[in-house]
Amino acid sequence: MAVYTEVTDDELTRLIADYGLGELLSYKGIAEGVENTNFLVHTSKGIFILTLYERRVDTADLPFFLGLIEHLNRKGISCPLPVRNRAGEVLTRIAGRTAAVMTFLEGVWPRRPKAHHCAAVGRALAELHLAGEGFPLTRRNALGLEGWHTLFERFSARADEVAPGLGTLIAYELAYLDRAWPKSLPSGVIHADLFPDNVFFVGETLSGIIDFYFACNDAWAYDLAICLNAWCFEPDFAFNATKGRALLSAYQSLRPLSAAERQAFPVLTRGAALRFLLTRAHDWLHTDRNALVKPHDPNAYVRRLRFHQEVQSPSEYGLETVA
Amino acid sequence: MAVYTEVTDDELTRLIADYGLGELLSYKGIAEGVENTNFLVHTSKGIFILTLYERRVDTADLPFFLGLIEHLNRKGISCPLPVRNRAGEVLTRIAGRTAAVMTFLEGVWPRRPKAHHCAAVGRALAELHLAGEGFPLTRRNALGLEGWHTLFERFSARADEVAPGLGTLIAYELAYLDRAWPKSLPSGVIHADLFPDNVFFVGETLSGIIDFYFACNDAWAYDLAICLNAWCFEPDFAFNATKGRALLSAYQSLRPLSAAERQAFPVLTRGAALRFLLTRAHDWLHTDRNALVKPHDPNAYVRRLRFHQEVQSPSEYGLETVA
Repeated sequence: MAVYTEVTDDELTRLIADYGLGELLSYKGIAEGVENTNFLVHTSKGIFILTLYERRVDTADLPFFLGLIEHLNRKGISCPLPVRNRAGEVLTRIAGRTAAVMTFLEGVWPRRPKAHHCAAVGRALAELHLAGEGFPLTRRNALGLEGWHTLFERFSARADEVAPGLGTLIAYELAYLDRAWPKSLPSGVIHADLFPDNVFFVGETLSGIIDFYFACNDAWAYDLAICLNAWCFEPDFAFNATKGRALLSAYQSLRPLSAAERQAFPVLTRGAALRFLLTRAHDWLHTDRNALVKPHDPNAYVRRLRFHQEVQSPSEYGLETVA
Repeated sequence: MAVYTEVTDDELTRLIADYGLGELLSYKGIAEGVENTNFLVHTSKGIFILTLYERRVDTADLPFFLGLIEHLNRKGISCPLPVRNRAGEVLTRIAGRTAAVMTFLEGVWPRRPKAHHCAAVGRALAELHLAGEGFPLTRRNALGLEGWHTLFERFSARADEVAPGLGTLIAYELAYLDRAWPKSLPSGVIHADLFPDNVFFVGETLSGIIDFYFACNDAWAYDLAICLNAWCFEPDFAFNATKGRALLSAYQSLRPLSAAERQAFPVLTRGAALRFLLTRAHDWLHTDRNALVKPHDPNAYVRRLRFHQEVQSPSEYGLETVA
């Protein structure tokens, strides 16, 4: 949780005028969002989110992220829509940061996802993958197999400070994935970070998806493997097969996996677990202890990875052939 | 800024039902509020603030604080109104904390107050003092002259870690105030913490006052002295006489100060500066460096105190007799 950058009422009043959003009624810094500073802004025209992009977001990527969100909106995906200012631009500057104003998306994210949430997110992910087709910009996945090697090199000497044996575990897994990682699965735009805190519900209905700042082009089934890691494990790290089946069936009701994707799925889940293990271990070692944001526990992904390493067949995830 | 306590969507859904507030649409932790955890909650019935009372608030004081806010609302003061649940109670429990739901007050607090803000707050303070009459509960000011001694004893040995000579300065000032502090000025309910972040404006109009968790019974003119310290100094610590005159004139347009109050005012401003110097110095020394909330700089109140020590007459604050 963090407001990294403060915004004055005078600065915000000028910005709101620039966007033609009426009179500023209130704004509150939101204690969510690890990467950026977010304010909930209420004007006489409605509720908006003002995002100030902080160090972790490369502003050169913003046209991809914001263009994608506009594209997905046009295709009927419910996600915040960037608001254009009087000059027709989606990006502005405030308090020394590049910033954007987005429409506000109602909904709460499920702190303890149930099977029906997993089904809803599976369906939404398939819709997102299909809606992304035709988006003209591309962005390579900086956190793909090659990026995992680079990231591990930055902390491999200190990996065992996170957990005993972690360095060996990661090195073993990277060597395995170098051999086994699938190369030519169906690909397109993926969200790449579709954790519960990025999926909103009103009651039991999925109301929308937020936070596209890891979106990139990669294998669609890898995005599904990320979701399985993020949504289908219990707080005690046990895999919940009911939730897994709910996620995968709902996804396949809109976009059935090919035989190659099903076959590759146990490798993809290992890669997805390793990807979050790597960033969490890195952040664990590099987060200033005075930081406003507490790093996530890498151990949650060590446990997931060890589970996936034992999987013998795609059917253990509830991945059956769709007739 | 801080969310000290997390609330799950399931817990909040139950609470919203308890209060008959319709369907939960969204909630965000707010990165404001040093003492408590606050969530901005949107339901189908409107926008509300959920406050979870953390360690610094004595729950035995809550009936005074919440009763006062209800009393002030009835008297026409614009401030958040506690919502009663189906059992008719204003206090509830959530996530292991005592909590209350309040109506949401539109407005933004002025980061750089101008003279017109000072005039508006002066008028609002007088209205608040007059509206407080007839409120049956009382609460003694734990941060009055006696409390200042107690607080200083807790860190006097380490005071010079905050600033060289600070221990001597505070001891000198306490000895002076012991002799000079007025005993029988007109008294009643005071806000006791009416800083800019507790006063909201929509455009140039004051829309309301928040955060009554230091409210107590004490001399009204002392509350005005707190406001003068909080609103009428520039970022370089210079006293702005225009703002001072705006504050004091607007206050006196509704409640003229007595001769005794005017005479005592330079002593009251010294006491008010010392009160915030003491809590800030204490927090400076006692805040865990990992804390979510950065302590305020005590030096801002050393500078104010030294200014007040040089004042020879109430007229230096722009305090003229009202005809």
